[in-house]
Amino acid sequence: MSNEMFERGLAIRKDVLGAEFVEKSFAAADDFNMPMQELTTEYCWGWVWGREDLPRKTRSMLNLAMISALNRPHELKMHVKGALKNGVSRAEIREVFLQVAIYCGIPAGVDCFRIAREAFNEVDAQAKPAAGD
Amino acid sequence: MSNEMFERGLAIRKDVLGAEFVEKSFAAADDFNMPMQELTTEYCWGWVWGREDLPRKTRSMLNLAMISALNRPHELKMHVKGALKNGVSRAEIREVFLQVAIYCGIPAGVDCFRIAREAFNEVDAQAKPAAGD
Amino acid sequence: MSNEMFERGLAIRKDVLGAEFVEKSFAAADDFNMPMQELTTEYCWGWVWGREDLPRKTRSMLNLAMISALNRPHELKMHVKGALKNGVSRAEIREVFLQVAIYCGIPAGVDCFRIAREAFNEVDAQAKPAAGD
Amino acid sequence: MSNEMFERGLAIRKDVLGAEFVEKSFAAADDFNMPMQELTTEYCWGWVWGREDLPRKTRSMLNLAMISALNRPHELKMHVKGALKNGVSRAEIREVFLQVAIYCGIPAGVDCFRIAREAFNEVDAQAKPAAGD
Amino acid sequence: MSNEMFERGLAIRKDVLGAEFVEKSFAAADDFNMPMQELTTEYCWGWVWGREDLPRKTRSMLNLAMISALNRPHELKMHVKGALKNGVSRAEIREVFLQVAIYCGIPAGVDCFRIAREAFNEVDAQAKPAAGD
Amino acid sequence: MSNEMFERGLAIRKDVLGAEFVEKSFAAADDFNMPMQELTTEYCWGWVWGREDLPRKTRSMLNLAMISALNRPHELKMHVKGALKNGVSRAEIREVFLQVAIYCGIPAGVDCFRIAREAFNEVDAQAKPAAGD
Repeated sequence: MSNEMFERGLAIRKDVLGAEFVEKSFAAADDFNMPMQELTTEYCWGWVWGREDLPRKTRSMLNLAMISALNRPHELKMHVKGALKNGVSRAEIREVFLQVAIYCGIPAGVDCFRIAREAFNEVDAQAKPAAGD
Repeated sequence: MSNEMFERGLAIRKDVLGAEFVEKSFAAADDFNMPMQELTTEYCWGWVWGREDLPRKTRSMLNLAMISALNRPHELKMHVKGALKNGVSRAEIREVFLQVAIYCGIPAGVDCFRIAREAFNEVDAQAKPAAGD
Repeated sequence: MSNEMFERGLAIRKDVLGAEFVEKSFAAADDFNMPMQELTTEYCWGWVWGREDLPRKTRSMLNLAMISALNRPHELKMHVKGALKNGVSRAEIREVFLQVAIYCGIPAGVDCFRIAREAFNEVDAQAKPAAGD
Repeated sequence: MSNEMFERGLAIRKDVLGAEFVEKSFAAADDFNMPMQELTTEYCWGWVWGREDLPRKTRSMLNLAMISALNRPHELKMHVKGALKNGVSRAEIREVFLQVAIYCGIPAGVDCFRIAREAFNEVDAQAKPAAGD
Repeated sequence: MSNEMFERGLAIRKDVLGAEFVEKSFAAADDFNMPMQELTTEYCWGWVWGREDLPRKTRSMLNLAMISALNRPHELKMHVKGALKNGVSRAEIREVFLQVAIYCGIPAGVDCFRIAREAFNEVDAQAKPAAGD
Repeated sequence: MSNEMFERGLAIRKDVLGAEFVEKSFAAADDFNMPMQELTTEYCWGWVWGREDLPRKTRSMLNLAMISALNRPHELKMHVKGALKNGVSRAEIREVFLQVAIYCGIPAGVDCFRIAREAFNEVDAQAKPAAGD
């Protein structure tokens, strides 16, 4: 395990997905899934997200397109939230998913719009101060 | 068939894929595939590429990512060439395909790099003046 | 947006999926997903479903086969219900899904049969008069 | 291996793909791929194609839709030829592939039309009497 | 229906998935899905699992890899439990899914680890004696 | 880039795919695809193939199953040859691909058997001494 790449990945992953979420993932890891946590942090967040030839905003939009095509709803919802953190606007997310509908087919597009709506609702619920605050 | 949307699509399609290529496609079309030519021109190039909320350069990068995930080598090669026309640099194409390798898997990444190389070679061969010019 | 194509699509979509379902979809749409509603209605339901060279019953069976292969369970359930509306019998749906099992693999087939059962149960529950009626 | 199911499958397979093609496949089989020949003949052609609840013409159209979505060009070309033998017209094949373009995405549709054209050309070349006949 | 192949498949299927589960599946089957139960039992469990050239433990690991790539979570969870019955250790399941993450992409890997965890939790809950036993 | 992981990956990759093939790949690499060569060597061959909890023979069989499901013929052919180097027999490859036919569908199985045949033919041609030797 390359410490430098892992540390770089951990910092980017926390920036994009939120420190609390990432810390919980590591805290919940055991012998079974710790290597997966390490792989993801080092290679995915450290190696590829750490490359500077594309801005994070662009990488987020590419992920939305790819993960839609790959048909992975859990990961897609997480990356919709990550895209908002990386400065992709809701209108830009809409444009990515309209392009998905044309290139990956209408059923893929319909699924994306439903998942994005769920992600937006969760983000909005967290942002809203509780009554009485 | 909406004439305005078709005309807008035809213009964008010629810009991105080259007027000669598009004119040949229509010239070769018959009763069997003319509706596919029309659908693609109007719906894909007119409707989604004609929307102004994302720049063409971004749409090209999204297409590279999606078509890689969809595993469609003929279309991918065509869109690598289109991406170059839309101002995506070879270094940026490399970055898209490294991200494909991580998110869609190593075999997908290997295929993309081979196809991009073929596209670059064809583009370079066309750009080179014939000996004796 | 071609008004004529959109109107044709809206009528077919209501016939196949039910007017109430479609009206709710439009009523719930906002700036984010309205373009997706329009795209689906015009191109999918107006352009392709509006073509007369295949009967709706055949188009429904093709959709069951394709959407099974594409692995999109939400859309599949909706199109099982739509297929029943278009005159595909439960025995014919069974045959489509047995062919899916052979050509797309056993896990795809198992998923289809489970989703079809859920769709049938929902259709049967709606058809049953409430106790006391 | 159930002899009855195998024999039923062999007869249907020869009807749809041509006796010569099927006989060559068995003649070329050895220890490595004979079990695959047997599985395909019995399970695919005997078991599912032998069921009488859908006409062969419908099963051919379903196969074109599914194999397009599955992205298997060799098998798709073979089934385009089989579909013609089962009475699917070229116009009906066009309609199936336009529906593929909408539901599986434009790149899938483009690939299908190219493969269908190759299949038609091969069928037409075989049908044409040699010069001097 | 070949009785011998069906009986062999039924025995293997009960060994791997549990007799109770399989009996429930048949008891719940009706005209609609009985042919799917028969197909699965005879061809999948009888024909391929009944071949002796690979041990069941290897077939289970192959299934985990393939069903992950095919993106079929219900079937994957069932086959994680089946793999444990066939002697695949949790550490070996981890290794299969790390290989999935590299070859099918990180989102596929993440999904597999989540599904495996759910399967393990269900297996552990069943194994635990109820309080007071 | 972790030197140790890269060196471990380079050694394994040469063992499985042949030193000459790997050296040619690096010799042909330029700014465009060198990062992909490095990623594949370190992450795929070093990180996952270097883990000792599964024997290489098992990892090869898993790859055949996954890459078949992923529908990547170039990579599949290379991994058929690699599997032979890792001690997977032709009979075992046959068994993997029969299981692919059942779980991923008949068209996937047919493609695998064709690609395996091509790989075997190439391996046999290389093994045969030239006439006159």
